Amino acid sequence: MSDKLKPRFLEIYKELKSELLDDKAFEFTDGALKWVDKMLDYNVLGGKLNRGLSVIDSYIFLKEQKELTSAEIFETSALGWCIEWLQAYFLVLDDIMDGSHTRRGQECWFRLPEVGLIAINDGILLRNHIPRILKKHFKGKPYYVDLLELFNEVEFQTASGQMIDLITTHAGKNDLSKYSLTVHKQIVQYKTAYYSFYLPVACALLMAGENLDNHTNVKDILIDMGIYFQVQDDYLDCFGDPKVLGKIGTDIQDFKCSWLVMKALEHCNEEQKKILHENYGKSDDACAAKVKALYGDLKLKDVYKEYENNTHAKLINSIEAQPSQAVQAVLKSFLAKIYMRDK
Amino acid sequence: MSDKLKPRFLEIYKELKSELLDDKAFEFTDGALKWVDKMLDYNVLGGKLNRGLSVIDSYIFLKEQKELTSAEIFETSALGWCIEWLQAYFLVLDDIMDGSHTRRGQECWFRLPEVGLIAINDGILLRNHIPRILKKHFKGKPYYVDLLELFNEVEFQTASGQMIDLITTHAGKNDLSKYSLTVHKQIVQYKTAYYSFYLPVACALLMAGENLDNHTNVKDILIDMGIYFQVQDDYLDCFGDPKVLGKIGTDIQDFKCSWLVMKALEHCNEEQKKILHENYGKSDDACAAKVKALYGDLKLKDVYKEYENNTHAKLINSIEAQPSQAVQAVLKSFLAKIYMRDK
Repeated sequence: MSDKLKPRFLEIYKELKSELLDDKAFEFTDGALKWVDKMLDYNVLGGKLNRGLSVIDSYIFLKEQKELTSAEIFETSALGWCIEWLQAYFLVLDDIMDGSHTRRGQECWFRLPEVGLIAINDGILLRNHIPRILKKHFKGKPYYVDLLELFNEVEFQTASGQMIDLITTHAGKNDLSKYSLTVHKQIVQYKTAYYSFYLPVACALLMAGENLDNHTNVKDILIDMGIYFQVQDDYLDCFGDPKVLGKIGTDIQDFKCSWLVMKALEHCNEEQKKILHENYGKSDDACAAKVKALYGDLKLKDVYKEYENNTHAKLINSIEAQPSQAVQAVLKSFLAKIYMRDK
Repeated sequence: MSDKLKPRFLEIYKELKSELLDDKAFEFTDGALKWVDKMLDYNVLGGKLNRGLSVIDSYIFLKEQKELTSAEIFETSALGWCIEWLQAYFLVLDDIMDGSHTRRGQECWFRLPEVGLIAINDGILLRNHIPRILKKHFKGKPYYVDLLELFNEVEFQTASGQMIDLITTHAGKNDLSKYSLTVHKQIVQYKTAYYSFYLPVACALLMAGENLDNHTNVKDILIDMGIYFQVQDDYLDCFGDPKVLGKIGTDIQDFKCSWLVMKALEHCNEEQKKILHENYGKSDDACAAKVKALYGDLKLKDVYKEYENNTHAKLINSIEAQPSQAVQAVLKSFLAKIYMRDK
C-alpha cells in the first residue's frame, strides 16, 4: 500500500526539512543551515522507514481503502516523519550512551570527528523539530492537543524504559541475577513498543477522528505485538541466518538482557546456571559457543516456537474481539508483517 | 515579594516530585524510583531559583499586588518549577558537552561514577517531566495549548542558540576571527535570554489571561535585558571582585566568546590584535595577564560603563512606552534586580 506512496513520502521529507530551515523562531546563520541540513539527512534518512510509512497504511485501513486526498497524504506522511524524527533522536543519543560504532551501515553521528558530543545537542534539536512540524501543520485541527500529548507521553515512556535498561544493564555490571523476564518485558514495552507499534496507529486514529481513550485495547494489543517483535529480534540474533539477517548477532558477548537468556535461566538446573553465569557476556567466542550449546541442550528453539505459536493465537483472538473491522484490518496487517519473520 | 512565598515554593517542589514518581504512564521499579528521586534533588535543586520565583513575582505585579489565592500560588509555582526543570535539563547536558567538572558547588551529575553517560537520558527525563506537570495541572485551562507551545518554542530557541555556540566555539578551534559581536549577541539571545528572561514573564502573562501575540514588545525588552545580563556576566568574570562573586573568572583562558574580547577586537590596532590572538584562550596565567593588561589599555571598563548607562536608559524608555502600568512594574522589577549588579 504505502509502497506506492513512498516516493511522495520521501518528497515530503524534503518539504519538511525546508520548512524547518526556514523557521522564523530562529535566525539561522549559514553555518547553522548547513549543519542542520547535513545532520537531518545523516540521521533521519537511511532507515527502513517502517514506522513512518505505517501511519499511512494504518490510516488507509481506517478509511477502508478509499483513495487518500493529497492533504491526507501530506498529513499522514508528516506524522510518519515525526515518528522517524523521534526515532533518529533516540538513536543519536542511545549510540553515545552505548558507545556504539556503526548505525544503519554508516559511522554513528557522534563518531564523526567534526561532531563529537555536539551530537547531544543535535539529538535535542531533532526532538524539538517534532512540535515545530506539528504546530505548522496541525494547529487548529480538533486533535492538535491530543497529538502533542501523545508524542509527549510516548517520549516519556521511551525515556523511562531506557532508564530501566541503563540502570539494570550498566549499573548491574554484568550481574545476571539483576535480570528477570519481568524486567525484560518492561524494558521492551516502554523502550520500544510504545513508539514503534502504538504511536503510528495512534497517530492514524487521531487523524481519523477517534478518541484514543476508546481504544485502550488497541494499545494493549500493539504493545503485546511490540514485545513479541523484540523476542523475535532476540531469537534471530542467536538462531537467525546471518546471510538473511545481514549481521552476526553478539547479544551473548554483549551481555544483553535477551529473552533467550531469561528463558535459559528459567529452564536450567544448578550446574547449567553456573555455566551460564561463567560464560555469558564474555567477548571470547569460545564462551559464547558454550552458551549457545547450553541453549541447544535446553531446547530453546522449541521453547521459542511454542511461544511464537501461543502469542500469535492470543493476538489473533484479541484482534478478532475488536468491534471495528477497520481496526482489525490495521492490527492484522501489523501482525502479518512480523509473524514468522526470519529477518 | 516571592521571598515570603519561597518556603511554599519549596514545598511545591516536593509535591511535584511525588506526582512524577507516581505517574501512571510508567510502572516504576524500586530502582527507578530511587534513581529519579536522587537525580531530581541533585539537579533541580541547588540553584538560586531566580527564574522560577520570578514567575510568582511577575504574576503578583500583573494582578496588581492583590493577595494570591492558594491555587494561584500553586500554579505560578508549578510553572516556575517547570522553568527550573528546563534549566536543570540544559545544565546536565551542557556540562557533558563542555566537559565541565563542577556545577552549583558540587560535582557535575555525569561525573558521579554510578552515573556517567546515563546522565544524557536523565537530561531527557527532566525535559519530559515538564509536559507531565503541565498536563496534570493546566489541562483544561484556556491557555493550556499556549503553555505547551511556549515551552516548545523556547526550548527550540535555546537548543538552536546552543548549536551556534557549539559550532562557533568548538568547530572554530580557537580561531578568534570566527567571533563577532553579532554572533555573541545571537548566542546570548537564543541560548540564555529566551528561557531566563522571557519565559518566566510569558508564563505569568498566560496565567493572567493575556495573549502573548499582543506582547511582542515585552518579549523584545526582556530579550534585550537578557543580553545586557550576559554582558554583565562577561564583564564581572574579568573585572568583578572574586570575593563578592564567589569565583575566579576564567573566560580568557577558556577562549570564551565574551563581550569583552569582542569589544577589544573592535577597538584595537593591528599590533594589539596580534597580542590578543597570541594570548587569548591559553591556560597559561601570564597570557591571561597580558590580555587583561590590553583590556586596561583599551579602557574597556569605561566602554562597559558607557554601554551599561546607554542600555539602562534605552530599556527604561522602552518600558515606559508600555501601555500597561502592571507590565511596566514587572519589567522595572527585572531591570532593578540586575542594574549595576556586582555579583
